[in-house]
Amino acid sequence: MSTRAELITIGDEILYGQTLDTNSHWISGQLDQIGIRVIRKTTIPDERTQILTAFAEAEQRASIVIITGGLGPTSDDLTKPCLAEFFGVGMYRNAEALAELEEKFTRMGRELNQLNKDQALMPEGATKMTNDWGTAPGLWMERNNTVFVALPGVPFEMKGLMEKRVLPALQARFVKTEIHHRIIRTGGIPESRLAEKLEDWEKQLPKHIKLAYLPTLAQVKLRLTATGTDIQKLKAEAEAEIQKLLPLIDKYVFATENIELEARVGELLREQHKTIACAESCTGGYISHLITSVPGSSDYFLGSIIPYSYEMKESALGVKNETLNTYGAVSEETITEMAENVCRLTGASIGVATSGIAGPGGATPDKPVGTIWIAVSDANGTEAKKYIFMKERKINIQLGAIAALNMVRSRLVEE
Amino acid sequence: MSTRAELITIGDEILYGQTLDTNSHWISGQLDQIGIRVIRKTTIPDERTQILTAFAEAEQRASIVIITGGLGPTSDDLTKPCLAEFFGVGMYRNAEALAELEEKFTRMGRELNQLNKDQALMPEGATKMTNDWGTAPGLWMERNNTVFVALPGVPFEMKGLMEKRVLPALQARFVKTEIHHRIIRTGGIPESRLAEKLEDWEKQLPKHIKLAYLPTLAQVKLRLTATGTDIQKLKAEAEAEIQKLLPLIDKYVFATENIELEARVGELLREQHKTIACAESCTGGYISHLITSVPGSSDYFLGSIIPYSYEMKESALGVKNETLNTYGAVSEETITEMAENVCRLTGASIGVATSGIAGPGGATPDKPVGTIWIAVSDANGTEAKKYIFMKERKINIQLGAIAALNMVRSRLVEE
Repeated sequence: MSTRAELITIGDEILYGQTLDTNSHWISGQLDQIGIRVIRKTTIPDERTQILTAFAEAEQRASIVIITGGLGPTSDDLTKPCLAEFFGVGMYRNAEALAELEEKFTRMGRELNQLNKDQALMPEGATKMTNDWGTAPGLWMERNNTVFVALPGVPFEMKGLMEKRVLPALQARFVKTEIHHRIIRTGGIPESRLAEKLEDWEKQLPKHIKLAYLPTLAQVKLRLTATGTDIQKLKAEAEAEIQKLLPLIDKYVFATENIELEARVGELLREQHKTIACAESCTGGYISHLITSVPGSSDYFLGSIIPYSYEMKESALGVKNETLNTYGAVSEETITEMAENVCRLTGASIGVATSGIAGPGGATPDKPVGTIWIAVSDANGTEAKKYIFMKERKINIQLGAIAALNMVRSRLVEE
Repeated sequence: MSTRAELITIGDEILYGQTLDTNSHWISGQLDQIGIRVIRKTTIPDERTQILTAFAEAEQRASIVIITGGLGPTSDDLTKPCLAEFFGVGMYRNAEALAELEEKFTRMGRELNQLNKDQALMPEGATKMTNDWGTAPGLWMERNNTVFVALPGVPFEMKGLMEKRVLPALQARFVKTEIHHRIIRTGGIPESRLAEKLEDWEKQLPKHIKLAYLPTLAQVKLRLTATGTDIQKLKAEAEAEIQKLLPLIDKYVFATENIELEARVGELLREQHKTIACAESCTGGYISHLITSVPGSSDYFLGSIIPYSYEMKESALGVKNETLNTYGAVSEETITEMAENVCRLTGASIGVATSGIAGPGGATPDKPVGTIWIAVSDANGTEAKKYIFMKERKINIQLGAIAALNMVRSRLVEE
């Protein structure tokens, strides 16, 4: 079994929803990479009894307890006195820590006040970890085979201490089980249908390989976790299972690594030396935004026209007045012209167009909110598809954009 | 003493550092607004014993326990069976939940499989909360004066259920004192400078009115919270304080209610019977996306041209070849033409244009990553401004879009 760790975050500002805790997310990822499993994260207020209870609970369950926050110089910073109380020891002023502080303040041309001097106070028996990135040193304390590490809550100080001092020390100390993760990203299939298709495959997985479904909007991430002692063997086993899985859900998998759909589309365009342009009506620029979020996208993204009004569909995109008047903007005929014209006007190898009713207004009896026509056009022809999402405005826009990118991806892998 | 709540997040993906938990941050903020204090947040794995222990611990300390995650249809979703076990009850298929599922699937033209049907399974005695945003209903269960609420982990489903069902129910049940919140939204001024300007005003606030700074990207939300027994009196007092505050930070306030900058720009355009169009290069469609995220934006948004390539800047937007060759795409001359041309081509009353280096590539010695030119043009002329954000790609794009919307807003209120 892998070594178990718990993370304790101390701070009222996180409990009140004023600060988003990204520290524990980052620490989890770092520990996972060295095969240490985080089994619980707890956030508690700057209150003595809550802190002591959390320490005691964590000690029961974990071999490593990493505490962030509450190391500062003000009166609401309680981590050090609580650690001293929990370990049943006193506090003393660490001479080396004081010297380091004095040197830092001299360099900054400032004088140490009493609060600053108190940053050199430490529980007896604690190992000091020098903080090269700020003024509060980290602490390492042990009892009954559980290690307590206390780190400042300021993200770059915490990261500096973790990378330079804590992670190497944990790695040296704890015998590690290897953990190997693989991510498979899918689009265009709901979690429940995916689960049906994978049921038999999941049942035949060896005990040390586990599958998790991580659904987000219109996409499901599959995570395969293999645990053991031989990392090369784990990698080979995971790869073998993925090779069995892929044929089952072939057309829904857009990547066998953890990258976004828009990044995968970008890779395909780059590999095939192709360019893309968009004509976005109801998605209002969101597809273009996703595509241009990817670094280097100017290599394959030529640009877009967002013809929100009827007039602009005609003037900027050359959709025929007759088509708009006969079939309306949300129709197969209009979307086909939009996709074909944006290719022609920009010279892109592939064009994608959207037109629909994002809502809440604009619905008609035969076109409910969430009706979106999407077309993809290239030298091999134009494909148009109607989707009915029936969600609220922002979600319809996101679903439309993801469906459009998925149609582009399909076209690129078919060819 | 205020009512105490705990949040339990269930999911291996969060403990492994693969998914950043933003749900508990958002829930904390919402509870804080109705005077409910979150005293602990716990994240635990998809494991029966860990889940049961966490439930039991939370019940000891809190009157409200909000659980997110683990409500999906697959075998690693354990929240419902664990709640049933914890409350010592069985599970049954809720007929109403099943009917809602069937209706949802019929509308989407899909058939229910066994896994979908199991989403209607509920612990006996639980109150179902209809999920209008997805397939897993929320649950409300009570024992010994502690309420357990279970919500799906998908953020927009969780938020929908919280806003529409959970928060009103918690408020009715637990909140005794009246709380009145007012939000003032500011842009273009950092938190520390805002705090300087508001220092004296904050000091003179009566004890029962508190100010909170809620900073987000390039914006700071100010929240005034008045607590007492007479809601009419609280409203009048808060309004009086806001009237004292506004002259101090006049040009940075874009709304005295909690609406987004793009919605405020939309209101101004609508009031003034004006239309807008964008020429977005480096922001790649993000301004258009923000504008069109607002319901009814088709009343004033005509459309955009996203001329990412040099060719499209000329062909679709009519920027002079000479201008591009002499000054480059990221220049005052080019951005001025872009803003003026998009007005002329679309007939919009106001045009906004962006061109810059989002990064990580593309920088030159005199144009570092994050250099963005923005121009706003209307019948009164064209204003161009250079910003240097020097952040990473996605942040530069967002900062550019917010700065552009802020320039549009300034132009609209000046006139």
